[in-house]
Amino acid sequence: MPARKQDVLDSIFYPHSVAVIGVTGSSDRVGYNLLQSIIHAGFQGRIYPVHPRLESLQGLPVYRSLEEIPEPVDLAVIGVNQLATLEVVEQCGRKGVKGVVCIAGGYKEMGEEGKALEERLVAAARQYEMEVVGPNTLGLINTRANLNVTFYPMQLPRGKVSFVTQSGGVGLTILHKAVDEGLGINKWVGVGNRSTLEISDYLEYLARDDSTAVIGVFVEGTDDARRLVQVAGEVARHKPVVFYKVGRSGAVSHAALTHTGSMAGSYQVYRQVLQQFGLLVVDSTLEMVAACKALAMAPIPRGNGVGVVTHTAGPSIVLLDEISLRGGVFPALAGSTMGRIKEVLGQNPPVVLKNPLDAAGQGMQAANLGPLMEAVLDDPCIDILVAVYCLHLNWRCPTVEILDARERSGKPVVALYISTGEKVKEERELLHSRDIPVYTTPEEAAWGVSALLHYALQRGGIRR
Amino acid sequence: MPARKQDVLDSIFYPHSVAVIGVTGSSDRVGYNLLQSIIHAGFQGRIYPVHPRLESLQGLPVYRSLEEIPEPVDLAVIGVNQLATLEVVEQCGRKGVKGVVCIAGGYKEMGEEGKALEERLVAAARQYEMEVVGPNTLGLINTRANLNVTFYPMQLPRGKVSFVTQSGGVGLTILHKAVDEGLGINKWVGVGNRSTLEISDYLEYLARDDSTAVIGVFVEGTDDARRLVQVAGEVARHKPVVFYKVGRSGAVSHAALTHTGSMAGSYQVYRQVLQQFGLLVVDSTLEMVAACKALAMAPIPRGNGVGVVTHTAGPSIVLLDEISLRGGVFPALAGSTMGRIKEVLGQNPPVVLKNPLDAAGQGMQAANLGPLMEAVLDDPCIDILVAVYCLHLNWRCPTVEILDARERSGKPVVALYISTGEKVKEERELLHSRDIPVYTTPEEAAWGVSALLHYALQRGGIRR
Repeated sequence: MPARKQDVLDSIFYPHSVAVIGVTGSSDRVGYNLLQSIIHAGFQGRIYPVHPRLESLQGLPVYRSLEEIPEPVDLAVIGVNQLATLEVVEQCGRKGVKGVVCIAGGYKEMGEEGKALEERLVAAARQYEMEVVGPNTLGLINTRANLNVTFYPMQLPRGKVSFVTQSGGVGLTILHKAVDEGLGINKWVGVGNRSTLEISDYLEYLARDDSTAVIGVFVEGTDDARRLVQVAGEVARHKPVVFYKVGRSGAVSHAALTHTGSMAGSYQVYRQVLQQFGLLVVDSTLEMVAACKALAMAPIPRGNGVGVVTHTAGPSIVLLDEISLRGGVFPALAGSTMGRIKEVLGQNPPVVLKNPLDAAGQGMQAANLGPLMEAVLDDPCIDILVAVYCLHLNWRCPTVEILDARERSGKPVVALYISTGEKVKEERELLHSRDIPVYTTPEEAAWGVSALLHYALQRGGIRR
Repeated sequence: MPARKQDVLDSIFYPHSVAVIGVTGSSDRVGYNLLQSIIHAGFQGRIYPVHPRLESLQGLPVYRSLEEIPEPVDLAVIGVNQLATLEVVEQCGRKGVKGVVCIAGGYKEMGEEGKALEERLVAAARQYEMEVVGPNTLGLINTRANLNVTFYPMQLPRGKVSFVTQSGGVGLTILHKAVDEGLGINKWVGVGNRSTLEISDYLEYLARDDSTAVIGVFVEGTDDARRLVQVAGEVARHKPVVFYKVGRSGAVSHAALTHTGSMAGSYQVYRQVLQQFGLLVVDSTLEMVAACKALAMAPIPRGNGVGVVTHTAGPSIVLLDEISLRGGVFPALAGSTMGRIKEVLGQNPPVVLKNPLDAAGQGMQAANLGPLMEAVLDDPCIDILVAVYCLHLNWRCPTVEILDARERSGKPVVALYISTGEKVKEERELLHSRDIPVYTTPEEAAWGVSALLHYALQRGGIRR
């Protein structure tokens, strides 16, 4: 990426000052909420609301125009309609603004007339060496800078996963699901019509962003699919990238075109090419969050050998099924491992001892699970462990045992705590703080494990 | 089903009296928790803990033996090990108990010796005309009778969906996910080794159970797959049945055999036969809950024509994709419908008007969505509407508009409220009380809609 673009993207994600154009006193309006989002997220830089007549808004002094702002402006957020936006972009250029976020739609997704309008927008940005987020976007978020430049005021937990999304609504779905899953967010951007900044530009930027450990991408379609996949493949060599490409049904081409002016392209071709470049492809927002969560929290395993310790067989069969479908294997346990297991469960426990290892009744007591997890983790063919437990009113979860086993072995551990979302929260916080992602359904746990295995094999891990 | 079996199943699900064998004073033990579960759920019948030496447990008097219990016992729950269970089952027979729940494993899933033990268990039950739930089961639940005969004390919201599950752990996953989704439960049974009661027996029972509107089934494998599918197909002609069959990967056969002594069988053959018999097949616990929720709450549409009203295009593209993959169609809107839409949005709104209908900025105000939803619902080719809204700190959700549109049209409506699980709860309660299932991700909404479309077409609905 050219140094200039990199610098501009830095100013967009880490602005010292933000101007908000199109603010009003009405909370019904986009502009009001753009301003409130910035305040609400706790942005520590300067905030300059701009309006030709108002004196103050939400406790801040209002400036009559961009010109009146007494210092340079890094980022301008424009909440006016598509025609007025063009004029504001010109003013931003004259002010020396580095990046603009253009919220309004009504451009190339609307056909010829809109396309011409967007071309003028791009020309204005180019003239002043500005970059445009959007147009036709929800905006962007950077929790590292307490920055929320969308019109959805919200507070998000900080974390290591960043998202690039071709849909604000799908991107919001992913954010909310991440909150439900206890997954912290780093950066988030709705790319909109990709007028001067392509998905691949954001990917290159996030690749160099040290605070981003994993990148999730939602794609409807792009005109430069080849460059996108090449860049993503390059990024994924050192930082995991997860793709959700809509369009399996073939029914979405027209819908994508009229949404963000994008060609959906053949899903199968897209998928094959993504996979050729070593990228992980998922099929839902749920799988996206599950995959990013594992990649953000757990280390990449040495190979694709999965061990399971459980007290309930059914969920381990679902794990086996889902993970096997995605390239994982469940190695037979070594004789020495079996010996250690029998020391815990006895010579003739009322279950068949194998991997997945079902300790049945004895596994309901957390203390028994500790040595079993350690034995399985020590097995030379096991690269990652899934620890399964059904939360119980009277019984202690094996959280301490899982933490100990993880620390002792160094191999990644994923927990499946079968529970409601509410009840798992307390245990989850501790486990998440120690590199152990926790899921509440076997499918989501399997999607998380499979994401880790994918990048294990991509990086030359042992294929068992 | 023979009248005797039907009567026994009635006594199992609606017992007047329950004996608990194997209770102790230690909350670590299964028996303690079996008793606590029954008390905790608020069971109104008589509860008889049985122990040879203890005087009282959890506030209840303890009986030395089954014989000492002064009245007939409908249901006995046995928490002792597999060998002791056999003796207790004999005692139950002599006492005239109608049904027994045998929790312990260690039977046919353990090979020849266990198989012989299970044959003796079955022989004892047959001798006294008892039916056995299990062995090797978590137990059963009937919220209609405030009955929880599992060793997981919990309180569940009442509802219209019943589950038959070949795994306690997967069954618990489904229950917890249902709670997270605001879906009420009716009955739930872990079939275990299916010694005298097959999945098909429970299905036939639930088919006649007026309080069960929808049945979800989790299957690992069965020896009598043909009968199961025939019975399920018959049941599904008047009551929706949803199947989750594990085993897509082919890796699970041995795991299923050693879990509940079941042959997993070929997944593809299973799936094809299930579909031939008109049954809905899902691929995860998440899809199971999403599908059952729609079927329990919304009426079956007249045909497979889906309309969407949204203010955010991306989630509607995911809906389009997922629903199209599952047999739904998105008809073009009639000229008259378009006319009504333009009355709301103007002649030249900054979006392309079509189905899915994206009202963009204008759709963020709930009041605008009302007439749009009504117009789309009135369209002759639309059989079901999905209303999409991203929850916002300052903006009102279109809950009132959705309720009005649903009531006015009579056609089913599904809401996609993009939100965290926590924030959606208040709106959800109202919508759920009025036949409108609410989801927080487009995929789950699509799975719900697709379940409704499946049964619409199965019942001769219009294929558009």
